[in-house]
Amino acid sequence: MSVDPNATIEITAFRWVPEFAQGLVRDLRARWALEEAGLDYRVRLLDQQRPPEYLLEQPFDQVPCLKDGEVRIFETGAIVQYIGEQSEALLPRDPQGRFRAIQWTYAALNSVEPAVVNLLLIDIFYKGEEWATLRRPGAADFARGKLQRVSDWLGDRQWLEGDRFTIGDLLMTTELRFLRHTDLVGQFPNLVAFQQRAEARPAFQRALADQLAVYAANQPQPQPEGAEA
Amino acid sequence: MSVDPNATIEITAFRWVPEFAQGLVRDLRARWALEEAGLDYRVRLLDQQRPPEYLLEQPFDQVPCLKDGEVRIFETGAIVQYIGEQSEALLPRDPQGRFRAIQWTYAALNSVEPAVVNLLLIDIFYKGEEWATLRRPGAADFARGKLQRVSDWLGDRQWLEGDRFTIGDLLMTTELRFLRHTDLVGQFPNLVAFQQRAEARPAFQRALADQLAVYAANQPQPQPEGAEA
Repeated sequence: MSVDPNATIEITAFRWVPEFAQGLVRDLRARWALEEAGLDYRVRLLDQQRPPEYLLEQPFDQVPCLKDGEVRIFETGAIVQYIGEQSEALLPRDPQGRFRAIQWTYAALNSVEPAVVNLLLIDIFYKGEEWATLRRPGAADFARGKLQRVSDWLGDRQWLEGDRFTIGDLLMTTELRFLRHTDLVGQFPNLVAFQQRAEARPAFQRALADQLAVYAANQPQPQPEGAEA
Repeated sequence: MSVDPNATIEITAFRWVPEFAQGLVRDLRARWALEEAGLDYRVRLLDQQRPPEYLLEQPFDQVPCLKDGEVRIFETGAIVQYIGEQSEALLPRDPQGRFRAIQWTYAALNSVEPAVVNLLLIDIFYKGEEWATLRRPGAADFARGKLQRVSDWLGDRQWLEGDRFTIGDLLMTTELRFLRHTDLVGQFPNLVAFQQRAEARPAFQRALADQLAVYAANQPQPQPEGAEA
């Protein structure tokens, strides 16, 4: 168990989120990287309504932030890279291996994520809006096109750069998870196998279980009938 | 002049793009970082129709890629960070300063860019489609909200982390440029001033001039009347 209230490293996370977001919130990325690196961490829980001063830590009002001694950073890409630098298991030390892994973190977050999160927003947040209904087929094609690129690259490799799991694979896996409400990933057998290999890692399993345990412990109480919403 | 056909570092760029994209294509980021770092580079020009084998270098079929000896990487975030690591002027060496700068590269590419590029696509690529017309006001509000976050953080700072220009400022400036066809940035005087400060840097001016010079030299010839399109 790596979650330890006395740990030096702190991340922020939400106390609870609705079911559609459970297992997708981005503190999962930080938890997973910390588990892979074998680093203990503590979690500072935030309500959905964050205090205004949280913007001084995270200008976009998201989770997670990371504190580790004097280092205080936000953005999961940076957090995962920071953790990677403390663990050769996640981020090779030679310049080419190092930057091949780093490039895949940017590829996940900038070349893949906008397409997959756009589809997630259309299907969940904007569902039923006329523009969303009209745009849905094109947005799905666009996301499928990005998956095709990743699938073509991956081929029969185990991980994006060969036989070694890195921070790039970690982030790419979380992008595929954003599409769990669709059959898009299922159209690419090598991406399905990639995602299954990644999610079978004990570090991922612990990270996911720890995130979900927080939500289970903080489930909002059902309102009595007739109470104000 | 830092573009040198005999330089060790090579980037890829397009031979020509339509006017709406000139000054926005992402090799500008690599050129700018190289100029800031004082590194010579050569440019390998690609036609809009890239050869299929280019996917082995850049799985998403974009520009730029970077070659530097044995290092071969894509994704502008990774390329700019790689260049930054060779120049303390762009990327501080202390852990906190270093990762504050790196976090802003991810913030630019993942927290800001999806919103601003979405608006750019709606206004230019999808202009006239019904969903785009319906979505435009909401997409503009969403992009404005991201600018508000950056503006609130920036306050009266010179750069995102104080008085020192880093790779984070470089990438954030290129995000603001994606909105040049709108008045959105103009609604935030401190972002206007930030962008002007960044674009006034001699390294930016050289990078932009070099990118535009390539397009000017490779302007497609007008088709004679009656010729096939």
